[in-house]
Amino acid sequence: MYILEPDSKTPLHIQLFNAIKEDIVTNYGVGEKLPSIRKVASTYNLSKTTVESAYTQLYAEGYIESKPKSGYVVIDTYFDEFKSERQEEPISPKTKVYKYDFFPARLSKDSFPLKLWKRLFSKAIDELLDFGAYLDGQGEEGLRVEICKYITASRGVKCSASQIVICGGFSDSMGLLAKLVKPKYGTFGMENPGYHVARRVYEEYGYSVVKISVDKNGIDLKELENSNAKLIYITPSHQYPTGVSMPISNRLKLLEWAEKEDALIIEDDYDSELRYSSRPIPSLQGLDNSDRVVYMGTFAKSLSPALRVSYMVLPNHLLPLYKESYDAHFPRVALTTQKTLELFMAEGHWERHLRKIRTLNKKKHNLMRDLLKAKLGDSMEILSQGGGLAILIYPTSTAFDIEKLKTLAEEKSIKLYFAKERSGGEFEALRMGFGGFSEEEIKEAVDVFVGVWENSI
Amino acid sequence: MYILEPDSKTPLHIQLFNAIKEDIVTNYGVGEKLPSIRKVASTYNLSKTTVESAYTQLYAEGYIESKPKSGYVVIDTYFDEFKSERQEEPISPKTKVYKYDFFPARLSKDSFPLKLWKRLFSKAIDELLDFGAYLDGQGEEGLRVEICKYITASRGVKCSASQIVICGGFSDSMGLLAKLVKPKYGTFGMENPGYHVARRVYEEYGYSVVKISVDKNGIDLKELENSNAKLIYITPSHQYPTGVSMPISNRLKLLEWAEKEDALIIEDDYDSELRYSSRPIPSLQGLDNSDRVVYMGTFAKSLSPALRVSYMVLPNHLLPLYKESYDAHFPRVALTTQKTLELFMAEGHWERHLRKIRTLNKKKHNLMRDLLKAKLGDSMEILSQGGGLAILIYPTSTAFDIEKLKTLAEEKSIKLYFAKERSGGEFEALRMGFGGFSEEEIKEAVDVFVGVWENSI
Repeated sequence: MYILEPDSKTPLHIQLFNAIKEDIVTNYGVGEKLPSIRKVASTYNLSKTTVESAYTQLYAEGYIESKPKSGYVVIDTYFDEFKSERQEEPISPKTKVYKYDFFPARLSKDSFPLKLWKRLFSKAIDELLDFGAYLDGQGEEGLRVEICKYITASRGVKCSASQIVICGGFSDSMGLLAKLVKPKYGTFGMENPGYHVARRVYEEYGYSVVKISVDKNGIDLKELENSNAKLIYITPSHQYPTGVSMPISNRLKLLEWAEKEDALIIEDDYDSELRYSSRPIPSLQGLDNSDRVVYMGTFAKSLSPALRVSYMVLPNHLLPLYKESYDAHFPRVALTTQKTLELFMAEGHWERHLRKIRTLNKKKHNLMRDLLKAKLGDSMEILSQGGGLAILIYPTSTAFDIEKLKTLAEEKSIKLYFAKERSGGEFEALRMGFGGFSEEEIKEAVDVFVGVWENSI
Repeated sequence: MYILEPDSKTPLHIQLFNAIKEDIVTNYGVGEKLPSIRKVASTYNLSKTTVESAYTQLYAEGYIESKPKSGYVVIDTYFDEFKSERQEEPISPKTKVYKYDFFPARLSKDSFPLKLWKRLFSKAIDELLDFGAYLDGQGEEGLRVEICKYITASRGVKCSASQIVICGGFSDSMGLLAKLVKPKYGTFGMENPGYHVARRVYEEYGYSVVKISVDKNGIDLKELENSNAKLIYITPSHQYPTGVSMPISNRLKLLEWAEKEDALIIEDDYDSELRYSSRPIPSLQGLDNSDRVVYMGTFAKSLSPALRVSYMVLPNHLLPLYKESYDAHFPRVALTTQKTLELFMAEGHWERHLRKIRTLNKKKHNLMRDLLKAKLGDSMEILSQGGGLAILIYPTSTAFDIEKLKTLAEEKSIKLYFAKERSGGEFEALRMGFGGFSEEEIKEAVDVFVGVWENSI
């Protein structure tokens, strides 16, 4: 006997469906007959439509079949025992949340075009994307074409869409390349100080890592020549973390070296869109005439780190190796994300978004720079500014107590980022990120920070 | 003099914006003044509102600033030279499209819940997701909890959400694990015949591969014991490609072996949801009491291969190693995809979807099986059926000419998949995929296939 509640919020046909399903799983065998729709309707005083709806759902979910002369027959008594109640979960320990977090690679929540993204996603879905098929392992061609147009026009990269591989973030791009060229290059050269993530990725792939000093012209070319590194990772347009740019003369020398030595240069152009006081410097890749540069880009710094989309431009000589690799078969980014991003770029939103995000962050950058200058005066020097999402500063006084600064900051719930800890190198500098704050928050955060700084001298 | 076209589809304020932007980039220097809004309005006979809109946009994009007493002043003359015209792209060579493609891992286009997915995506976006922040490298906790509930309830897996890592597809899961345990296990044991993708991934990470025979009880345990493999990849519930299941006695012996040898078992439960004639066999992981099993799952086979979401359950003893690895810092799936999937599972759609997809594919499976039986009769034997997205058959006649079959199929635009080519092993069998076809298409495809088959005997 099924118990149905006419006053329940659950419609009667759903209640009936659930009751019969339960009944089938518990009491029926395969091949047994269900009562007719007419019978059930009269027994429970229901309309025939209600019972039909329940039976249709049972049919759709594979419990019953309609057989000529026999009526409805049970064909499956298996029931996924999904537990409907939430299970107890061990609460995972949360990392400490700081009141003032100067994280140098954060964007503020309101800078992502949520509504527009939703509209473009709907548009992509409405084009009846085929979710049943496997995708192009290299990334969807439409998105590769848009990225190609963008980096060709705005970064001076020379490439075609066939050289672009869509990846799931910077470390994914780097890992794919690490695996690809490991048989040829076992040693990974990088800038010192340099980007710790790059080092960690290549260490995990079993490379030995060689660090090459950075001076005001970027990586030291003499030191590079004397090293045994033939695979070198650099950030020539906006060095991480010092912010220096490599002058054209050194770029040309570096490319000459690469040609002579059959070397490979990984150019990481991570935040080239975010330049506030000058035009972005065109890419190193665009100067290369001997197929020696892998160009790496990402959408994390100017669109969102939560979308997980990056790309790299492979030199032509690496394409056959890539296409033979198993990675060429496995797409790394969901179709929905690729298609939405493609529309975003193709319809011109990306260009507009870049200008907005640059303007927004330029204001924040100038505000933080001016506040730090005004309030810290001669006690600090600015090492790098004018781009990205952080200003790099260091204390001028030899009496400055970095350890005390760390302790005091922790007490005031300030999270600071030290260049030496994360990037190596000689100097002790702070990366003061502004991207995650609003302008009001910058004022407040800098005020609290200044108090802590003054007590550390 | 700006030329504006009142009859154009582009609104006047946008035309004006573009014209002034062009003017600034070409003719202005930083600090120079723009004419007042009133002046521009009267010169071009426009409303003040139109001019204000254009100026507001120039301000938002960072070209101008409003200064007290000076009015609007140019602050940036840099212009991203995005080319607005489509560039010529080399047309990438398309892979041949077959009329009848029996690909064994395809879902039909109409099986993905497009409308529902769109609605849930909108809901996720409306919750004001933070796209400015970095995600949990292990995967968002909400999605991990849902996956944990599902595999606990329906696959008998024993785990908590803290053991689950969200990855970007099967080969991504496998690659992450390969990197993680390489220092301990340099040899990768796998079934023969077995899944070629697993072999390729581990080869690319520098493992030596050992193949262990499969018989009607799954992997040969004696052969395994005599090998030097301590890391072993198996498909115990539905062996790939033979379809056999490992009986409980062998499962227990395998787990004993693993405990004694300090070995690690990778259980790939790739299509466990798709069983048509019996209840799914509970996972091997659920029988394990000594923390020896890594459980691998994916949404590719029953939801969509284009979403790029998979997961693995790490044994507790591997968690510290994982958390120290750099992979633990880098999320592999976009926030949007994770949140939409979480809602899909939490609201009960996943359970309903599974029943539907199982019913749909059961019909296709039975139709293809019955047609093949009726039309090929004694000339073929069915090696595996009752689950997944393909039926495995082989020719019984010694006179059967496989090479001729391949040639004839190619002529008729039929794409066939041979078990030996892809999976190794001794026998020559065909994997007849039905998932990508509609029922009508199955009838047509089998008809054409039967003609080709009969001409190969």
